[in-house]
Amino acid sequence: MAKLDGQRIAILATDGFEQSELTVPQQRLKAEGATVEIVSLNAGTIRGWQAKDWGDTVKVDRVIDDASIDDYDALVLPGGQMNPDILRMDRRAVDFVRQFYESGKPLAAICHAPWLLIEADLVDGKRIAAWPSLKTDLRNAGAEWVDEAVVVEDGLITSRKPDDLDAFVAKIIEELREGVHEARQAETTH
Amino acid sequence: MAKLDGQRIAILATDGFEQSELTVPQQRLKAEGATVEIVSLNAGTIRGWQAKDWGDTVKVDRVIDDASIDDYDALVLPGGQMNPDILRMDRRAVDFVRQFYESGKPLAAICHAPWLLIEADLVDGKRIAAWPSLKTDLRNAGAEWVDEAVVVEDGLITSRKPDDLDAFVAKIIEELREGVHEARQAETTH
Repeated sequence: MAKLDGQRIAILATDGFEQSELTVPQQRLKAEGATVEIVSLNAGTIRGWQAKDWGDTVKVDRVIDDASIDDYDALVLPGGQMNPDILRMDRRAVDFVRQFYESGKPLAAICHAPWLLIEADLVDGKRIAAWPSLKTDLRNAGAEWVDEAVVVEDGLITSRKPDDLDAFVAKIIEELREGVHEARQAETTH
Repeated sequence: MAKLDGQRIAILATDGFEQSELTVPQQRLKAEGATVEIVSLNAGTIRGWQAKDWGDTVKVDRVIDDASIDDYDALVLPGGQMNPDILRMDRRAVDFVRQFYESGKPLAAICHAPWLLIEADLVDGKRIAAWPSLKTDLRNAGAEWVDEAVVVEDGLITSRKPDDLDAFVAKIIEELREGVHEARQAETTH
């Protein structure tokens, strides 16, 4: 049995996502047995950004209007300069992120995606890793910006950049397995 | 005699500037008689962003290492999602913006460029117009985000988007002419 059999993971993104920050978690979490869905603002496809130009398109599996936080065990937010800058202006996207956090399930954001965490007012008092351009915005929002490959604080998993993807995905898997473990313990003790 | 004869204006930008937010001020300020220089992080050219893709390249007139605030009567900061996100991580660019503000000369920023004003710690207590995705970052930095075509506060001229360029450039010209006027008055009274 794969590590994440039965787990359902949402990746919320729109045009301009940093390509590897969507595709690497998507592929690795699927390889571990999870169901992974791309959630976006509109149906169709979204375009990735790779280094200095547009990259590949990715199929949208679910429009945010049809997505419920109850459908997923974890939420992953890829970066890219454009993607979170667009999503943070969409009330549905920001509410989805905030409600996901409040549900207590793992919420993972990498690179520029912590702008969405700022928008959802989730970073005050927390240690957050992110692309260094966000350092001042995070500090002004009450967070401590940290220069580490991955940080977990109060259910928030954050990383700085594509080079951190190994640590980022490993931590998502670890947090999901802990969730499974806790759920199973709860079943056993009933 | 044109309105801005003898005035020297710097436009600070790098790759990913919103094309019209650089070229429209550049052309109109030149048409009024000003000398306009594109200042950037490296020599060569920088690439604009137009709507959904890369646009035209623009020649860099001065590398920031060779630029002094004493050489210019006003500083203009174009937006674009990528351009200020890159510039705010460059200490030279942020220092240039801060020192320009401290010199008391007009400093104009449009769209996403107020991220640079946040980085230079210039917005606390001020009314600032900007692209709406910056609203929360500006508020967290102590500013009041305002939904107006152009706002002038304490020497800072700010606008929201390309549609505001007429008002933005008109205000830059007005502030520069006031500067000339004050300087001439000072000369007369000596």
